[in-house]
Amino acid sequence: MQVSFACTDHNLKRGNGDHSKQTTTSPNVVNQARAKFRTVAIIARSFGSFTPRHISLKESTGKYTGMKYRNLGKSGLRVSCLGLDQLMTIAYESGVNLFDTAEVYAGGRWVSHITETERGLSRKHIIEGLKGSLQRMQLEYVDVVFANRPDSNTPMEEIVRAMTYVINQGMAMYWGTSRWTAMEIMEAYSVARQFNLIPPVCEQAEYHLFQREKVEVQLPELYHKIGKYFVCSYQWLKEKIVSEDGRKQQAKLKELNHIAEKLGCTLPQLAVAWCLRNEGVSSVLLGTSNPEQLTENLGAIQVLPKMTSHVVSEIDHILGNRPYGKRDYRS
Amino acid sequence: MQVSFACTDHNLKRGNGDHSKQTTTSPNVVNQARAKFRTVAIIARSFGSFTPRHISLKESTGKYTGMKYRNLGKSGLRVSCLGLDQLMTIAYESGVNLFDTAEVYAGGRWVSHITETERGLSRKHIIEGLKGSLQRMQLEYVDVVFANRPDSNTPMEEIVRAMTYVINQGMAMYWGTSRWTAMEIMEAYSVARQFNLIPPVCEQAEYHLFQREKVEVQLPELYHKIGKYFVCSYQWLKEKIVSEDGRKQQAKLKELNHIAEKLGCTLPQLAVAWCLRNEGVSSVLLGTSNPEQLTENLGAIQVLPKMTSHVVSEIDHILGNRPYGKRDYRS
Amino acid sequence: MQVSFACTDHNLKRGNGDHSKQTTTSPNVVNQARAKFRTVAIIARSFGSFTPRHISLKESTGKYTGMKYRNLGKSGLRVSCLGLDQLMTIAYESGVNLFDTAEVYAGGRWVSHITETERGLSRKHIIEGLKGSLQRMQLEYVDVVFANRPDSNTPMEEIVRAMTYVINQGMAMYWGTSRWTAMEIMEAYSVARQFNLIPPVCEQAEYHLFQREKVEVQLPELYHKIGKYFVCSYQWLKEKIVSEDGRKQQAKLKELNHIAEKLGCTLPQLAVAWCLRNEGVSSVLLGTSNPEQLTENLGAIQVLPKMTSHVVSEIDHILGNRPYGKRDYRS
Amino acid sequence: MQVSFACTDHNLKRGNGDHSKQTTTSPNVVNQARAKFRTVAIIARSFGSFTPRHISLKESTGKYTGMKYRNLGKSGLRVSCLGLDQLMTIAYESGVNLFDTAEVYAGGRWVSHITETERGLSRKHIIEGLKGSLQRMQLEYVDVVFANRPDSNTPMEEIVRAMTYVINQGMAMYWGTSRWTAMEIMEAYSVARQFNLIPPVCEQAEYHLFQREKVEVQLPELYHKIGKYFVCSYQWLKEKIVSEDGRKQQAKLKELNHIAEKLGCTLPQLAVAWCLRNEGVSSVLLGTSNPEQLTENLGAIQVLPKMTSHVVSEIDHILGNRPYGKRDYRS
Repeated sequence: MQVSFACTDHNLKRGNGDHSKQTTTSPNVVNQARAKFRTVAIIARSFGSFTPRHISLKESTGKYTGMKYRNLGKSGLRVSCLGLDQLMTIAYESGVNLFDTAEVYAGGRWVSHITETERGLSRKHIIEGLKGSLQRMQLEYVDVVFANRPDSNTPMEEIVRAMTYVINQGMAMYWGTSRWTAMEIMEAYSVARQFNLIPPVCEQAEYHLFQREKVEVQLPELYHKIGKYFVCSYQWLKEKIVSEDGRKQQAKLKELNHIAEKLGCTLPQLAVAWCLRNEGVSSVLLGTSNPEQLTENLGAIQVLPKMTSHVVSEIDHILGNRPYGKRDYRS
Repeated sequence: MQVSFACTDHNLKRGNGDHSKQTTTSPNVVNQARAKFRTVAIIARSFGSFTPRHISLKESTGKYTGMKYRNLGKSGLRVSCLGLDQLMTIAYESGVNLFDTAEVYAGGRWVSHITETERGLSRKHIIEGLKGSLQRMQLEYVDVVFANRPDSNTPMEEIVRAMTYVINQGMAMYWGTSRWTAMEIMEAYSVARQFNLIPPVCEQAEYHLFQREKVEVQLPELYHKIGKYFVCSYQWLKEKIVSEDGRKQQAKLKELNHIAEKLGCTLPQLAVAWCLRNEGVSSVLLGTSNPEQLTENLGAIQVLPKMTSHVVSEIDHILGNRPYGKRDYRS
Repeated sequence: MQVSFACTDHNLKRGNGDHSKQTTTSPNVVNQARAKFRTVAIIARSFGSFTPRHISLKESTGKYTGMKYRNLGKSGLRVSCLGLDQLMTIAYESGVNLFDTAEVYAGGRWVSHITETERGLSRKHIIEGLKGSLQRMQLEYVDVVFANRPDSNTPMEEIVRAMTYVINQGMAMYWGTSRWTAMEIMEAYSVARQFNLIPPVCEQAEYHLFQREKVEVQLPELYHKIGKYFVCSYQWLKEKIVSEDGRKQQAKLKELNHIAEKLGCTLPQLAVAWCLRNEGVSSVLLGTSNPEQLTENLGAIQVLPKMTSHVVSEIDHILGNRPYGKRDYRS
Repeated sequence: MQVSFACTDHNLKRGNGDHSKQTTTSPNVVNQARAKFRTVAIIARSFGSFTPRHISLKESTGKYTGMKYRNLGKSGLRVSCLGLDQLMTIAYESGVNLFDTAEVYAGGRWVSHITETERGLSRKHIIEGLKGSLQRMQLEYVDVVFANRPDSNTPMEEIVRAMTYVINQGMAMYWGTSRWTAMEIMEAYSVARQFNLIPPVCEQAEYHLFQREKVEVQLPELYHKIGKYFVCSYQWLKEKIVSEDGRKQQAKLKELNHIAEKLGCTLPQLAVAWCLRNEGVSSVLLGTSNPEQLTENLGAIQVLPKMTSHVVSEIDHILGNRPYGKRDYRS
């Protein structure tokens, strides 16, 4: 069965004809645009949607794979704990705009569309960027728009005002930050409270076996000040493992592989499950580039129950990088 | 005479062709959607409307039945003290989209459209849910959108922000709560004041002969803190009477029936009139499923003047469940 | 030369075809609608408008009649000190929708459209009422929407929120009050400040030779608390003069007529000029029902310079109703 | 190569047919309109734009001329330090609506559209004025709308509310002030903070060799109170030099010309470069009326690096008008 890219037909633009099928933009042009704005899709459960023919199908799929759902950051939006990045991107960048979403939907009902701003974060960049993004994707709105690292040139007030504007205009449901420091998130939150604007709901942070400090120590410290602030982690982990950085850690990886074998899973599955053991993580975006890898990665869901405190301690021992933050005394 | 379901033509969508007549959705599909979002219609007097051909007709009808009007919660909207739920719902769920509204309008001039959110109360659920609801009913907006019990997953700020958004976008005139605790209502009110958002105007509470505590004690206590907070009661009462729960109270029902006979009315009419004797109740939604029952229920209006303090005391004595709250010393 | 009713073509609805010329609603239907919402037009100078062919014409007209302009209440909008009510109303109510505006424009460049809400002031009444009004007049927005006496049923917060909503939706530029007490105006202002909403800019008060208390004592007292609060007076004065109430004052009217003769003007002209001598009065709406009377009334402009302190004292002496408020010690 | 006036196709109105080409308004009518609203275009770098075919072209152009970019006031919008005023204006006023923008784009990628309000600053003037301006230019929005000197008749709250309205309606990205006093800017800022409205981001001030006080002393004093407040200077300087005012300074101009010769540039280039040496200046709008002069003026960019402290001191010595403000002790 083939459905169009923007599966959540509730936010498909109508009236302007069915451009989505006719205007197959050439891969080259799309590539150029993609270099500036990256669009990803994560698997989300959406209670309030109204296209019954989809709902029944997805629910059964969800039961079949055992997918778990968590709230995205401090928002009420529930997302599957495994998301997808690369696969759709690659297909989209190749000019494809029709997808067999059988795998994509595994365990979820709806696709939540999120989009990310380009470097510049001036009001003009944010608004024009998101408008352009929505137009290219033929969407009425995205669920979450992520702001990249704030450039030193733009005042925080301008960023938060622009994000509030796009939400009030109906172009996005929520906004989040992407690779911001704890200090920057704190400032965004303070500015939102000061001027009665809408604060960000989540941070998309780099988090994997070899990078734990920010997600395990710095972000949890914000809990005390601005409430729960879950993170939505990225797929740098797998790249790290197979990259030069990872190869430096050959001994550790060999030991981790040992644990994976004991648990009856692959090393990537262990790495994903290890991220998910952290309840502060809303979702891990999978960056797989082919359907086989995706299916393998999704298997991490079955590994999650096996992440006992004993296994986690064993991994901590191998990695030797467990941070000693205040967090230990809290949770 | 036959008029379309959305009788208040001021909030009918125009321009998109007359879908309302052509796209008769199959009952089955509608049923599925209905299971998630329930749409009811209550009889309301609307001073500010502008379709003269309707006004004259309704006014005379109003005079004929002696229908009374009360403010909906703490809003300025005046609604008939008897509303309608089931009848239209059932017809609508059967795929009908043309109604003979002769009875429906009995005593009122206009139909106020209210809608209720589904379980989930994330910003995405509320907004997409209401949009879908408006689209199905071919309405530009509803008068009141009710939020169901807040799920523990969604922060109150997100709920109040989303409700304020749909009001500012012109999709609803007011918002209310449905079966919330006094504490939850208080929190919604505080959050609205803290962030200068729009507070809810009414609570739709379960209230009948055998369930009095919340409406007669808990909600009135909010009066001191957040101003008058009228309730809009539901049609659980009749179901209770004929249900197993009611059958346990056979002796009491027999005595109540005795009183009804003395007053020259039926037991259901007594039950409805008893709710209406409470001035804090804006409207009782009637859940009748056929026109005969509706006509009978509407007769409660004529019973209302007979609810003297003597009769009320007598009923209190039979029920033996009069709450001893602070309220006694106030009113 | 004939121009359409809505002379300020900048706020004429486009796109929907030229309904204004084709749908000449029957006088009867319009009458019914008018009984609920009254629409008046006052002569205003509008600097920021962009239909050059009109501007040059009006400016010369302005110079010719010597019309004076004042700010409308505490807004930046400048209006001619004489406005028009009845004439257009009568014509409009007779089904006419094309006017020879030669006299109407005397001294002004543009027509500012103002509209008044019907009794009820619930959010629903205000919004639906104004929408209906705009649709009937084929206008995109009015300059000022006036709220009639607040009904005790609607909370002030709901009124100010609804007025802020119609302004933020682009349906009106400003809002004012009509026949509100000083206390009610103060409450509206306080509520606007409390919830950061838009406060009213002017009060349309009854003010004439035989009714001075409110405009000369009560409203000026608000100056100290909420800033300058000019009033926009109504055309009850002329009706009073020719009515039973006026006839009771035969002796006084005879003496006033004497003064009018000395100044070389008519009694109505004197009455209008007397109102205008009060600098707190933005504009006097003329309620003339025929072009001849209008021309006569407009002559009040030439009488204004003759309202010396001596003449005003003389009139005070005749009327014997000069209020002794704190105002005397202030201005 | 010929492109349409509104080069940033992202804010060109679509759907309404291609009016831009068909309705070539007669120069005379446009002139009249222009007398009221002046529209200028400055060269800006826009990171967040999405028309790839333009970007590559502009970037190379930027590298070729060595154009520098600065933030516009305290906004995140980066603009080229040289802007353009007169040239497009003149052409536009002559009825031309197609431009060879080869020179205009020198050094920049995108055109930022800014517009200026006419004298009156009432809500009605600002909103109707900007709407008219956008319609004439066939733009969806401008980047910056400048408010001219506040008229004493309009309260500051009304101005800031109207500016916030046009930004929230998507008609402008930012707003600035034009020739306001430091006191007026301070009041606008305070009012914005008091009512949680959007503050202005820049001041367009008169600044040149013979007028230094405001930009070098008064505006910098605002830095301490309201944060960085860069100015965007006007092209009065060149006019001053060739005008009667300038001729009075013949001796000084002769000496300045001497310095220009030493630096191998023209006097206008020296004058522009002298303004740009002040880092508080976001951009100097060039008012050249022919392409040759524009090319010459743009050469000021190459003169900028030659504005050493020695050269600046020499110029200060010749002018004898260096202000002795607190600024000396700060920077």
